[in-house]
Amino acid sequence: MVNIQVPTIKLNNGAGMPQVGLGLWKVDKGTCADVVYNAIKEGYRLFDGACDYGNETEAGQGVARAIKEGLVTRSELFIISKLWNSFHDAERVEPIVRKQLGDWGIDYFDLYYIHFPVSLQYVDPSVRYPPGWYMDGARKEVVRGKATLQGTWGAMEALVGAGLAKSIGISNYNGALVLDLLAYARIVPQVLQIEHHPYLTQAPLLELCRREGIAVTGYSSFGPQSFLDLGMKFAEDFQALFSHPVVVAVAEKHGRTPAQVLLRWNTQRGVAVIPKSSSLERLRQNLDVCSFDLSEQELKDISALDCGFRFNNPLNYGIPVYNFV
Amino acid sequence: MVNIQVPTIKLNNGAGMPQVGLGLWKVDKGTCADVVYNAIKEGYRLFDGACDYGNETEAGQGVARAIKEGLVTRSELFIISKLWNSFHDAERVEPIVRKQLGDWGIDYFDLYYIHFPVSLQYVDPSVRYPPGWYMDGARKEVVRGKATLQGTWGAMEALVGAGLAKSIGISNYNGALVLDLLAYARIVPQVLQIEHHPYLTQAPLLELCRREGIAVTGYSSFGPQSFLDLGMKFAEDFQALFSHPVVVAVAEKHGRTPAQVLLRWNTQRGVAVIPKSSSLERLRQNLDVCSFDLSEQELKDISALDCGFRFNNPLNYGIPVYNFV
Repeated sequence: MVNIQVPTIKLNNGAGMPQVGLGLWKVDKGTCADVVYNAIKEGYRLFDGACDYGNETEAGQGVARAIKEGLVTRSELFIISKLWNSFHDAERVEPIVRKQLGDWGIDYFDLYYIHFPVSLQYVDPSVRYPPGWYMDGARKEVVRGKATLQGTWGAMEALVGAGLAKSIGISNYNGALVLDLLAYARIVPQVLQIEHHPYLTQAPLLELCRREGIAVTGYSSFGPQSFLDLGMKFAEDFQALFSHPVVVAVAEKHGRTPAQVLLRWNTQRGVAVIPKSSSLERLRQNLDVCSFDLSEQELKDISALDCGFRFNNPLNYGIPVYNFV
Repeated sequence: MVNIQVPTIKLNNGAGMPQVGLGLWKVDKGTCADVVYNAIKEGYRLFDGACDYGNETEAGQGVARAIKEGLVTRSELFIISKLWNSFHDAERVEPIVRKQLGDWGIDYFDLYYIHFPVSLQYVDPSVRYPPGWYMDGARKEVVRGKATLQGTWGAMEALVGAGLAKSIGISNYNGALVLDLLAYARIVPQVLQIEHHPYLTQAPLLELCRREGIAVTGYSSFGPQSFLDLGMKFAEDFQALFSHPVVVAVAEKHGRTPAQVLLRWNTQRGVAVIPKSSSLERLRQNLDVCSFDLSEQELKDISALDCGFRFNNPLNYGIPVYNFV
């Protein structure tokens, strides 16, 4: 095991969250257990999972193996999952969390998010799991549910009381939703997870969270990269950030990879990151992104690439859900 | 009185709303009564007011004079007002509506909006009216209120039952807020009012409203123009739409003014408009914006100016309210 120091972000409830972790979106079921196990060996402690990623059972197998071999204890890990849209009705929340905990083979999540501020009609897990965006799974109809975000948040708060989640968070919320939530929340979210990269810098939303004591985790730190993997053509219209001259110049100057520069740009903005990789070499590189500093000017030059483009807008892939307009 | 035909938009409750009206934002207290009276003479029937515009008493005087002279009856008019941020607590809604109705000298609004999805701390109208964004009116502190949007919407719905508003609407909501509202609303809003011009075309939000049966009114139809009036420097960085080559070319071809072309671009998109003017000539021109048709190509060319820029973002004028991020 290498000895890389990862900073800890202190959440508003006193808990500590590693600033760098492994995202499990798009990690293949077949390799997921090994990826998680190897990541723990490399020093990863935070794993960002979700019902929708379809690999929680396998991720849990990787965790179990590492714990069994004495590499880590459960309390040294920070395991995250998310509530899928189909389970927003208050009475569905605890049962699905219990199922997800069962899949992972653990008895609490360190952090549990509302994945999207979108309520969809309930789908019985025995019928289809994960349910995805479409009612029938065949890309026909997105059927709205009847849960309000306030009702769902109340059920999230109850998870903390029940000991099923140590911290709770929100994902893909915009500023207006955060402001409304602050009016009804008994527990202010510990973390907001959002798309965040040099093409979508979201400075005002970061500022709002800073003022309100909400930590921010960024996903898709490499911008279009995540979406090229999915064969999404619109992502090809963007200059890849790994080969962007501004990023490459900074990387060369620091003797780091462009990926490391992009992650460091995130962490110096106070944002936690959860890059995915199945390669051991890149797992190592991605974890080591707090041991060098970009200059103020370098941070500014990278931030200047902002064009306000959101890749992870459901409308971009034809899902008629209007959360980002 | 000129005889200009203004189309009527049928709202989801069966009421008819003129597609063109007069916006009262920035209409000076001193001239407001005359502006409203003259507009009625010119054929205007819809007046878009708000507590925050500070001229409801004067607007009501213009209406009273026109009715007294027999130019129109109350039922021929469509009078709109809005709930200011300081009155979002459910128990404040009806009293402030009654005060606003008293200022206008009428006994119901045809349409009453939530002005912004922002709850601010209550300000007693006897202390400061209109309250504005700041607690003390002196640009020191914006103090958040405790009202949820759901709670406020419930009080809006009660206005309909009480006969104080025939229709109710929302303003400055984004798609995510609309989706959440649809989960808790007993009455789906009749109208959404948003900033809408060629630099901020908001096509997906229009599509969402079309699907959900919510009519859309656009404000700031001339883009930066409204904000130059306020001395907002950032608006100077934009090419004025009145002199934009694309708009001017279409205007010349149709023998219309650029303002008329911009309004027609709105109305052909199904959007209602509420341009402001104190000049009689422009009042006439602005009302006559449904009697000619732009071609599909002309509509597209104008829509292609979209750059997603929102002028009416409180952050643009230093108000730390994060609704549009």
